[in-house]
Amino acid sequence: MAGTLYLDDLAIGQKYETATADVLLEDAIAFAARFDPQPFHLDEAAGRASVFGRLATSGWYTASLTMRLLVEGELDVAGGLVGLGGEIKWPRPTYPGDTLRVVSEVLAIRASESKPGLGIVTVRNETLNQNGEPVQVAVVKMLVPRRPT
Amino acid sequence: MAGTLYLDDLAIGQKYETATADVLLEDAIAFAARFDPQPFHLDEAAGRASVFGRLATSGWYTASLTMRLLVEGELDVAGGLVGLGGEIKWPRPTYPGDTLRVVSEVLAIRASESKPGLGIVTVRNETLNQNGEPVQVAVVKMLVPRRPT
Repeated sequence: MAGTLYLDDLAIGQKYETATADVLLEDAIAFAARFDPQPFHLDEAAGRASVFGRLATSGWYTASLTMRLLVEGELDVAGGLVGLGGEIKWPRPTYPGDTLRVVSEVLAIRASESKPGLGIVTVRNETLNQNGEPVQVAVVKMLVPRRPT
Repeated sequence: MAGTLYLDDLAIGQKYETATADVLLEDAIAFAARFDPQPFHLDEAAGRASVFGRLATSGWYTASLTMRLLVEGELDVAGGLVGLGGEIKWPRPTYPGDTLRVVSEVLAIRASESKPGLGIVTVRNETLNQNGEPVQVAVVKMLVPRRPT
């Protein structure tokens, strides 16, 4: 584990950024074919006829790309990014041709009651498209170790 | 769209099931390499040294496999399965070798305030392993069309 940030290094309100990722049509379709094979994720005409108005990516593709960006981003937690779950919303679709990036903000920090070496950190991960519009907002709880003494 | 269920066909408390999916080591590693390249998702020794105790799948792989099962399952909504978001938890890890299935229960149904032809249905999707233990619990809101008159 190359992570450098311990619970003791985090503070409420801190923000962390990621690089960008381009959403490619062929990748979005390959993901949908494997995990979310619905016509509006696979075919442009079906996308136009759907609530999305165009071929839209699966929300789970957006979520998965978001994870990739986070793993390679500034929020480089010791022990890795281990999520317990949280809330996830897709305020608008992601479309092939979009370019995504993620901005994370620390919302809450607490020590674990059961495990003295661990804390639970609440982070809001906003996935933004090239216009700065959120395509996914995830508020997640993560396990973060305390710095070894 | 082959979906057969309209808002008018759904009732609170109804349950829908899916087929099963085997979690294969090579698929879990391929997904992690692309979307969640953390050592505990890629390497057995790193998994043993982590909080997971073994190589565990990415939670987003569990979420994506869950979506695949849902798309092919009994909850065959007209217009497709279009999620607006919700809460997702991973109460325990998914491991290669697990066999997953999903049980969905309708929790709430309401007509859309802004779009007369649409409703919003809240569903709890529990993804269970071969021991009947939940590896993912997602409470999601979905867009469901009313039956055309």
